[in-house]
Amino acid sequence: MPKSKSRKSVKAPARSAAYATPAKAWQARIGDAVDPLAEKFVESLSFDYRLAEHDIRGSLAHAEMLCTTGMISAADLAAIGKGLNSILDDIRAGTFEFDVKQEDIHMAVEAALIQRVGDPGRKLHTARSRNDQVALDIRLWCVAAIDRVDQLLTELQQAFVTLARQDGGNVMPAYTHLQRAQPILFGHELLAYVEMFQRDRDRLADCRDRTNISPLGSGAVGGSTLPIDRQQVARQLGMNGITANSLDSISDRDFVVEFAFALSMIAMHLSRWAEQWILYSSTEFDFIRIADQFTTGSSMMPQKRNPDMLELIRGRTGGVYGQLVALLTMLKGQPLAYNRDMQEDKRWLFAGFDSVELSLQIAAPMVKSATLKPQSIARRIDEG
Amino acid sequence: MPKSKSRKSVKAPARSAAYATPAKAWQARIGDAVDPLAEKFVESLSFDYRLAEHDIRGSLAHAEMLCTTGMISAADLAAIGKGLNSILDDIRAGTFEFDVKQEDIHMAVEAALIQRVGDPGRKLHTARSRNDQVALDIRLWCVAAIDRVDQLLTELQQAFVTLARQDGGNVMPAYTHLQRAQPILFGHELLAYVEMFQRDRDRLADCRDRTNISPLGSGAVGGSTLPIDRQQVARQLGMNGITANSLDSISDRDFVVEFAFALSMIAMHLSRWAEQWILYSSTEFDFIRIADQFTTGSSMMPQKRNPDMLELIRGRTGGVYGQLVALLTMLKGQPLAYNRDMQEDKRWLFAGFDSVELSLQIAAPMVKSATLKPQSIARRIDEG
Amino acid sequence: MPKSKSRKSVKAPARSAAYATPAKAWQARIGDAVDPLAEKFVESLSFDYRLAEHDIRGSLAHAEMLCTTGMISAADLAAIGKGLNSILDDIRAGTFEFDVKQEDIHMAVEAALIQRVGDPGRKLHTARSRNDQVALDIRLWCVAAIDRVDQLLTELQQAFVTLARQDGGNVMPAYTHLQRAQPILFGHELLAYVEMFQRDRDRLADCRDRTNISPLGSGAVGGSTLPIDRQQVARQLGMNGITANSLDSISDRDFVVEFAFALSMIAMHLSRWAEQWILYSSTEFDFIRIADQFTTGSSMMPQKRNPDMLELIRGRTGGVYGQLVALLTMLKGQPLAYNRDMQEDKRWLFAGFDSVELSLQIAAPMVKSATLKPQSIARRIDEG
Amino acid sequence: MPKSKSRKSVKAPARSAAYATPAKAWQARIGDAVDPLAEKFVESLSFDYRLAEHDIRGSLAHAEMLCTTGMISAADLAAIGKGLNSILDDIRAGTFEFDVKQEDIHMAVEAALIQRVGDPGRKLHTARSRNDQVALDIRLWCVAAIDRVDQLLTELQQAFVTLARQDGGNVMPAYTHLQRAQPILFGHELLAYVEMFQRDRDRLADCRDRTNISPLGSGAVGGSTLPIDRQQVARQLGMNGITANSLDSISDRDFVVEFAFALSMIAMHLSRWAEQWILYSSTEFDFIRIADQFTTGSSMMPQKRNPDMLELIRGRTGGVYGQLVALLTMLKGQPLAYNRDMQEDKRWLFAGFDSVELSLQIAAPMVKSATLKPQSIARRIDEG
Repeated sequence: MPKSKSRKSVKAPARSAAYATPAKAWQARIGDAVDPLAEKFVESLSFDYRLAEHDIRGSLAHAEMLCTTGMISAADLAAIGKGLNSILDDIRAGTFEFDVKQEDIHMAVEAALIQRVGDPGRKLHTARSRNDQVALDIRLWCVAAIDRVDQLLTELQQAFVTLARQDGGNVMPAYTHLQRAQPILFGHELLAYVEMFQRDRDRLADCRDRTNISPLGSGAVGGSTLPIDRQQVARQLGMNGITANSLDSISDRDFVVEFAFALSMIAMHLSRWAEQWILYSSTEFDFIRIADQFTTGSSMMPQKRNPDMLELIRGRTGGVYGQLVALLTMLKGQPLAYNRDMQEDKRWLFAGFDSVELSLQIAAPMVKSATLKPQSIARRIDEG
Repeated sequence: MPKSKSRKSVKAPARSAAYATPAKAWQARIGDAVDPLAEKFVESLSFDYRLAEHDIRGSLAHAEMLCTTGMISAADLAAIGKGLNSILDDIRAGTFEFDVKQEDIHMAVEAALIQRVGDPGRKLHTARSRNDQVALDIRLWCVAAIDRVDQLLTELQQAFVTLARQDGGNVMPAYTHLQRAQPILFGHELLAYVEMFQRDRDRLADCRDRTNISPLGSGAVGGSTLPIDRQQVARQLGMNGITANSLDSISDRDFVVEFAFALSMIAMHLSRWAEQWILYSSTEFDFIRIADQFTTGSSMMPQKRNPDMLELIRGRTGGVYGQLVALLTMLKGQPLAYNRDMQEDKRWLFAGFDSVELSLQIAAPMVKSATLKPQSIARRIDEG
Repeated sequence: MPKSKSRKSVKAPARSAAYATPAKAWQARIGDAVDPLAEKFVESLSFDYRLAEHDIRGSLAHAEMLCTTGMISAADLAAIGKGLNSILDDIRAGTFEFDVKQEDIHMAVEAALIQRVGDPGRKLHTARSRNDQVALDIRLWCVAAIDRVDQLLTELQQAFVTLARQDGGNVMPAYTHLQRAQPILFGHELLAYVEMFQRDRDRLADCRDRTNISPLGSGAVGGSTLPIDRQQVARQLGMNGITANSLDSISDRDFVVEFAFALSMIAMHLSRWAEQWILYSSTEFDFIRIADQFTTGSSMMPQKRNPDMLELIRGRTGGVYGQLVALLTMLKGQPLAYNRDMQEDKRWLFAGFDSVELSLQIAAPMVKSATLKPQSIARRIDEG
Repeated sequence: MPKSKSRKSVKAPARSAAYATPAKAWQARIGDAVDPLAEKFVESLSFDYRLAEHDIRGSLAHAEMLCTTGMISAADLAAIGKGLNSILDDIRAGTFEFDVKQEDIHMAVEAALIQRVGDPGRKLHTARSRNDQVALDIRLWCVAAIDRVDQLLTELQQAFVTLARQDGGNVMPAYTHLQRAQPILFGHELLAYVEMFQRDRDRLADCRDRTNISPLGSGAVGGSTLPIDRQQVARQLGMNGITANSLDSISDRDFVVEFAFALSMIAMHLSRWAEQWILYSSTEFDFIRIADQFTTGSSMMPQKRNPDMLELIRGRTGGVYGQLVALLTMLKGQPLAYNRDMQEDKRWLFAGFDSVELSLQIAAPMVKSATLKPQSIARRIDEG
C-alpha cells in the first residue's frame, strides 16, 4: 500500500513541554532543519515499531532494577509500570498512535510514557542509553522470533512425517544428477527433509543461546557508574546472563547476522524441497498432486495446475540470502563502537524473518494435503 | 507502520458479476480455499501497486492498437480510455482503493475498469496476457526510475562542483593507505566524485537503452495469432523498439538486474564518499564541517556532532547489494519461460531504488551546505 | 604461478589394465572424447588433492570394518593398509605424483593403491560409493580445518590480552559515530576483540559438532544392503555418530556452508579491527605504532608507513563473503540427491579457509608487536 | 596441485646490486623482517603474473612517450624495448622464472629488465607510479578478456543457430511454471538463448568502452609534474582516451566490478540453459540427447548418462556471483585514493573469468553435438 496512506492515518500525540527532555538536544537541531526529508531519512519507527513489546518488557525490567537498587522510588516504579502497561495494551489493541516525529520506537514509547505519567517517566532513562536499550530490544525480539521459527519448523517436520505415514510405503526412483539411480520408498525421501529442518532447528538453538544475553548496563559505550544490578535485569527477562564488555555489547550485531544465516539455510532447504516438488508436479514426472488451494490456473489456461506457491517459496530464497549479504556488508569494516549504520539491521532482519515465516506457514499445510500418485509413478518406471 | 493499519484503510469495491470474469478460473479456486494465508502468500499488490500508472499507460497504448487494427471499436476504445483515465486520476488523488483480493495491480486495474465501463473493459485483455503485460509495466517503471536517478545524480554532481567552486582552492593532503601522500587541492578531490557519478550515469544510460523495448505481443509465452501491431504500441510508448523472441521476452528480467547493479555501484560510490567525510568530520581530522541539519547529538552528549546521515548512507549500501544478490539468486537456474519466482523481482528492485533515491536526495544538500576548515587542515599539516 | 608449469612437473603413473576397473565405464567414455577440455572441465584433482590424507584415513577405517564384518580377509586388509600408508607417506613427502587423468583425489588414490597392491586394492570400494566417500572426506577435512582456525583464534586472543597487559592501562577516547564519546582504558577496547573472537570460537564448536558425523554407508544414494557396521567406522574416525538418512547424507553440504559462514564472521571481525587500527595508524589519529615488518613504504615515498597488512586483511573480507554466497547459490534449488554442482563446494571452501587462516596467522604477531602511543593520544585529547 | 611443488620449480634470478633500487625502501624492511609469512601475505605475483604481457605492452608505450618527450634517450628506449621484448619472449615461451621475492608482476618485470639492460631499465619508472601502472595493466587485461568472452559468446550463439537449423522445425511444449502451456517450435526456444547471450555481448561492449581508457600519468595519486604526453600513450595502446582525475583514476575499479557483473549475467544465462537441458535429459522428459563425451556414467551404474557438464556449468554460477560480491564488498567504504585492499580485485576477477571462459568453451560443442528426440517428445505429448 502507498506509505502515504498509512502515514495519513497516524495522528501526532499532544506534545507536552516535558516530553522533549530526553531528546531535546538533537530533536531541537533536527527541528531547526525543518527538513521533512532529513526526518524521513533518519527515522526507523516505520520498521522498528515491531520492537515495541520488547522495548516495554525491557523497560519494565530496568525500572524494577532501578527501584531495587534505590535509584527510583516504589511510587515512581508503580507509575512507570502503569504507564508502560497501558501503552502496551494500546499497542496490542492497535490503538496506539505512532508519531513519526519520534524517530524511533524507543523515543515513541518514552514520549508517550512521559505524557501519560509525567515526571516518573523521565526517570526511566536513568543509567540507560539508547545504545544498550536498542541492543537489548533486538536481542529480545530475536529470541521470540527464533522460537516462532522453531515452532513452524516443528510443524513442517510433522507434516512430512504425516505424509510419510500416509504414502511413504510407495516405491519411487531416487535420483542422482536428475537421473534415476535406485528404487527407494517415498517415505525415505520425505524424511530427508525432516533431517534438513532438524539441523536448522539445532542451528537456531545455538543462535538462541548466543542471543539471549543482556547487554543492558553498557550505557552509551563505557558502561555506567551508577549502582546498577545487570544480573537482576537479565534474570527477570529470562536471559542466560550478561555481556562482558561494554564496547563490544554496543557494537555487536553478530546474533542478528547469525539468525539471518539460519534463516538463509532454512530458505535454502525450502527451495530444495520446492524445486523437487515442482518437478514432481510437472506432467512429465507427475509423481505428486498438490492440493487445489495451493495451485493456480491462468486466465488463458484455467485448467493448468501451476505450483505457484512452491515457485514463490523457491523464488523468495534470494531475498533471504540478500538480507544476509546486506548485514555482512553493513558490518564490514565498522569501527567501534556504535555507528548509525547499524540502524538498518532491523529492516533487513525483519524482511528475512517475514519471508521465511510466511513460507513455513504455507509449506506445512501444503505438505500435509499433498498426495502421491503411485500409478503414474509405476507407469513412468515401466516406460524408463 | 503496522501493515494491518494500512490494510484496514482499504475497502473492497462492490463485486459485479462481470468483474470476476478475467480471473474466474483461479480466483474461484483460491476462493474455495477460503485461505487468507494463501491469499497473502501470493498477492503482490502490496508492492506492485507502484506499477499502476505504467500499467494504465501500457493499457491505453494497447487499446489504441486494438482499435487501429480493428479488434475493438472506436466506442470501446473511448470507453476504455475514459475508464482508465478516471482510475489514473483516482490513483494520483490517492482516492483509489486497492483491493488486496485482486492479487496484483493488473487485476486491480482491470477489475476497476470493468466495474466502471462494463463490457468494453472486458475486451482490453484481447491479444494480451499477464505475462507480457507485467514485463511491459516493469520496463516502463524502470525507464522512469532510471530517469529519476539520473536527475538526482546530476544534482549531486552539481553540488560537488558548487562546493569545489567555493572551497576548492584550498590545499589538503591526498591519502594513499590512509597515509598522507601529497598535497592536493580540495577541489581536485571533490571532482573525483563527479567522475564516479558520471560513470554511474553512463551505465544508467546503457541500461535504459536495453530496458526501453516493448515485449507486448509476446502473449503468455508463444506470442499472439491475432493481427496485432507491436511497433505501434512501442512507438506510442516512446520505446526504442520491440523484443525479438516471445519466450525470452516473458522470462527476461536482465534489465531489472542490470538496473539493480547500477544502483549498487551508485550506493558503493556514495559509501566511499560517506566514509571519507565521516573521517573528515572526526575530531582527529577535522577537515570538514557538516551543516547542523545533517548531524545529530545524543541524549547523553548533546554537544556531539554525529554524522548520522553519512553513516546511514554508508550503512544502506548493504541493502542495495543485497537486492542485487536476491535478483541474481532468483534467476539462477530458472527454466523457460515464466515462473512465479519472478514476482519477487519488484519487491527487491523497489527497495533498492528507494534506498538509493533517498540517499541521493539527502546527499546533494549535504554537500552543498558543507564547509571546509582550512585553518584546522593547516594546523594538522604542521603537526604531521 | 602458471598452472602449466606445475602440471609439467607431474608424471602419469604407468597404467595397469587392472587399474581402470572402478572407473572404466565413464573413463572410457571421456577417453573416447579424447577431449582435454572436457577432462579439464570435470577434473577436481587440482583442488581436492587437499583431501588426500582424509580420504586415506577414511579408507583405512572402511577397510578395517570390511575385515571385521568379514567382507575382506585379514590379508586383504594388511595389503590395503600397507598400500594406503605408503601412499600417505609419499604425499606427505611431496613425492606422490597426482595424475590429472584421475579426475579426482578418490580416483587418484584408488588407482595408486591398485597399482601398488593389486587385487586387494580393488576390494576397497566394496560397500562404498564415491558419493558417501567424498561426503566423509569433506567432513573430516572440515573438522581438521575448524580445529586449525580455533587454535589460531586462541593465539590471536592471547595476543590481544598480551597487548592489554602491556599498554592496556592507558586512557584513550571511546568513539561512537567516529566521534569521541567517553574516555576508556585501551585495554577495555582490546578486550572487545577478544569477545568477538570468542563468539567465533563458539560458533566453530557448534559447527564442528554438526560436521563430525559419518555419512559412510549411505552408498550412492540408497544405502547398502551389505552387512556394514557404520558405527565402527565412525568410532574409529573419532566422530560423534552417524547420519540418519542416506539421501540427505549424500546431498547435505550444510556443514560446508555453516563453516563458510563462521569464516565470514571471523573475516568481518578482522575487518572491524583492521579498520580501527588503520585509523589509529593515520597521522591524524597516531594512536598506535605497527611494527616495521607489518608496514611498507612506497617506491616514491619510502618514509611512509603504510599499514598494508591491515588493508589486505580488511580487503580479503570480500573474498570470504563471496565464498559463502557461492555456496548458498550452488545449493539453492538443488533437487535430491547428489548433483555434480556440488563438486565446486571444495574450491570455494578452501579459498575461504586459506584467506582466513593467513589473515589470522599474520594478525597475532601484528597485535603482539604493536605499541600504543600515549603521548600522542594525550596531545590529541588536549587539542579536542 | 600443491603450491609448494610449483614454487619449488621457480629459481630466483641472480640479484644485481642495481636491481633493488626502485623498491629498496620497503623491500629492505620486509627484508629485515626475514618473515616468509609476511612475504606470502603481501605478494600478488602468484596471480598477477597474468598481467605480464599487458604490463610489458604498457611499459613499451610509456617508454616511447618518455623518449618522444625527451625524458629518455633513443638509446635508452632501444635498450628498454630490447629488454622488455626479450622478457616477453621468455614469458610466452614459459621459460621466464618468476621470483616470488618480487612481490608483484611489476616488480618482477622491472627487476628482470634492470638485470638485463642495466641503467636504462632504471629510467623506465620515470613519471610513473605503481598505482597508475597497475590501473593501466588491469584495464588492458580486461579489454583483452572482454574480447575473448565476446568471441566465445558468438561461437555459442552460432552453435544454437546450427542446432536450430538442424532440429528447430520440431514441435515441442513451451512451459510456464514448468507446466505445459502451448506448442512451439524447438527452434523458437533455442533462439531465446541467442537473445540472452546477445544482451550479454551488448553489456560487454558498453563495459569495454568504459574500460579502454588510459589512467597512466596519474602517478601515485596527484599526477605528474613532468612533461608527459598521456594521449600519446593511450593512442599507442589503442585506447579510447585518458581519464580525467588522478585521484579517481588511482582508486577506480568500477570497470573490474562491471566486467564481473557482465560475467555474472552470462553465468546466470548459462545456468538457465543448463537447468533446462538437465530437465530435458531426464528419463521423464527425454527431449534431448547430450553427446556421449559430455555425459558420464557412474562406477556403480555405468549405463547412466549423467549430464555432469551441464551440472558443473550450473554449479559454477555461484562462484561467479561470489566474485562479484567480493568486489562490491571490497570497494564498500573505501576512502580515496589507493588502498592495498584493491590488490585482491585481480584474484577474484581472474577466477570469475576463468570459470565463465571454461563454461563457454564447453557449452558451444555441447550444443552443436546435441540432438532432439522428436519421437520421445511426441509420445510424451500424447500421454499428457
